[in-house]
Amino acid sequence: MKTAAYGVQDATSPVAPMQIDRREAGPHDVLIDIEYCGICHSDIHQARNEWGGGSLYPMVPGHEIVGRVSQVGTHVTKFKLGQLVGVGCMVDACRHCEDCHAGEEQYCEGTVFTYNAKDPKHGGLTFGGYAERITVDENFVVSVPENLDTKAVAPLLCAGITLYSPLRHWDVQAGQKVGIIGLGGLGHMGVKLASAMGAHVVMITTSASKAADATRLGAHEVLISKDAEAMAKHAASFDLIIDTVPVAHDLNPYIGLLKRDKTIVLVGPLDPVEVHGANLITKRRQVAGSLIGGIAETQEMLDFCGKHNIVSDVEMIEAPYINEAYTRMLNSDVKYRFVIDMTSIKA
Amino acid sequence: MKTAAYGVQDATSPVAPMQIDRREAGPHDVLIDIEYCGICHSDIHQARNEWGGGSLYPMVPGHEIVGRVSQVGTHVTKFKLGQLVGVGCMVDACRHCEDCHAGEEQYCEGTVFTYNAKDPKHGGLTFGGYAERITVDENFVVSVPENLDTKAVAPLLCAGITLYSPLRHWDVQAGQKVGIIGLGGLGHMGVKLASAMGAHVVMITTSASKAADATRLGAHEVLISKDAEAMAKHAASFDLIIDTVPVAHDLNPYIGLLKRDKTIVLVGPLDPVEVHGANLITKRRQVAGSLIGGIAETQEMLDFCGKHNIVSDVEMIEAPYINEAYTRMLNSDVKYRFVIDMTSIKA
Repeated sequence: MKTAAYGVQDATSPVAPMQIDRREAGPHDVLIDIEYCGICHSDIHQARNEWGGGSLYPMVPGHEIVGRVSQVGTHVTKFKLGQLVGVGCMVDACRHCEDCHAGEEQYCEGTVFTYNAKDPKHGGLTFGGYAERITVDENFVVSVPENLDTKAVAPLLCAGITLYSPLRHWDVQAGQKVGIIGLGGLGHMGVKLASAMGAHVVMITTSASKAADATRLGAHEVLISKDAEAMAKHAASFDLIIDTVPVAHDLNPYIGLLKRDKTIVLVGPLDPVEVHGANLITKRRQVAGSLIGGIAETQEMLDFCGKHNIVSDVEMIEAPYINEAYTRMLNSDVKYRFVIDMTSIKA
Repeated sequence: MKTAAYGVQDATSPVAPMQIDRREAGPHDVLIDIEYCGICHSDIHQARNEWGGGSLYPMVPGHEIVGRVSQVGTHVTKFKLGQLVGVGCMVDACRHCEDCHAGEEQYCEGTVFTYNAKDPKHGGLTFGGYAERITVDENFVVSVPENLDTKAVAPLLCAGITLYSPLRHWDVQAGQKVGIIGLGGLGHMGVKLASAMGAHVVMITTSASKAADATRLGAHEVLISKDAEAMAKHAASFDLIIDTVPVAHDLNPYIGLLKRDKTIVLVGPLDPVEVHGANLITKRRQVAGSLIGGIAETQEMLDFCGKHNIVSDVEMIEAPYINEAYTRMLNSDVKYRFVIDMTSIKA
């Protein structure tokens, strides 16, 4: 069915209105009327083909999608008409590999991303959430708790799970000391989630101006990474550090903050980082990466957020503002995530 | 007691005969008549003050020590006169911290290294194994199986445990695919040990000329890292990779060889390595470091080697040849470890 959307025609064009086709709900699909879609940094990189030449056009970005089910396929068992649901970064995977069986579909070689991907089952390209509606296999749809502020739920589908998954995978326990590097869309979710898990949360930032906000979000301490004396006081004391900074930076001062056998997890870095082996070797420390989370884990995260009343801090915009929002995001001028009100696209 | 040794007076002097004092065996000490001492790359770096200005002179290097007990202190319970024993990289630690209680003395902040360290209990500096004898607290001495070729045991005390510990810590199981990068003093021990653990061992090297020797040592496959096609065939297939290369190199091609959630462990790198976050993130891979092993684990390693008849491949030398051995080591001209016959120093 014809669907109004916002997207780009090529790597240099602005985000603008366009029409796309959405399939009717097949036997295993749900059709979702999109209410809100968050804007992720990766939307900008993919729209502008900044990830090594792989972008596919035309492109409708958006993988932080919240809406209500408006059609259900004949075999759908998990969702009902009118139910509040979410779609994140994936709309399918091979479903047969070791990763899929482990509930780690995000690591499957056959993952079908929500946009900027070829759709192997239905042909053509996948189109994301900057649109009126989307049709998705029910196995890649999650249920959204009704008690949360719906518009602020959208960023949980990418930013939220990107932080929740490593906090769980590295088994954060109450009382452990957890560092979150960088206070942006990802980092502010890390502070909220780790704090709700009972961890002692330290916001690690280059900017003293972020201290008050970090504390408001739930951080117990703020560590200014340019302050050598403060860094020395925290040496070898962290149980886990999650690094959300997307630009090239020196990882070594942060590695030195970890206890023996502990890990710093990269969830943001796109540029290479330099690692001194000696910093790892002297305490058997580890540098790891983590990519979003699996579908079951995303559901678990939403349930956790429902229980602890956690959502993203958002600034609501209408669709025509997307290009300006991109510019502001590149200047870190948003607290902390833009969310598009999709009624603005239907008008 | 006056003891003949070989050492350096400063960062530029050659390794030459010198006299040192060894203490008599105190209540908890054993005095060891040294039979053999291996030469480790770190001996060269420390003798020449190449590790950031911290070298202490005069210095007697050597931390791959095998000999026989010639005195036992009044409270010594673990060792008897005449027993074949070994001393590795440490002669003491704080014994009270979390690391020490966990049997991970090598990560203790109070570790006393076998040479090039201040001796907090006895004053002065510690002197290593390029000497007639050494006095060591029994808790930092290990028992050497009598069935092994004694002279070839010496390198197990550093090179052996440096590879054994990560193989155990990352829990290598029979049938798993383990990669060892670099065929030198460390790497050749990795091949032997991983093979004895039942792993499918792949020697990863830049040099096709090393294939035959790797196979002789127990490798099941040889992967030439410059061969892009071969590297692609092995992509995402390894359960563990241990990187023994001591010079700066690009870690990213090796990271791509790991399965999801698996680890590449640095045991050699002294120079910084560049890591692309994306290579870690896409399969939640990890880069770790590992430092020698604890005392109990060193004993476990020696017992394992005794059971599986594993020793180092060595070239025997006499003490006056040490300087030439250093030069040859820097040219990778040894298969695979020099060991000094300490009767040459007593003459």
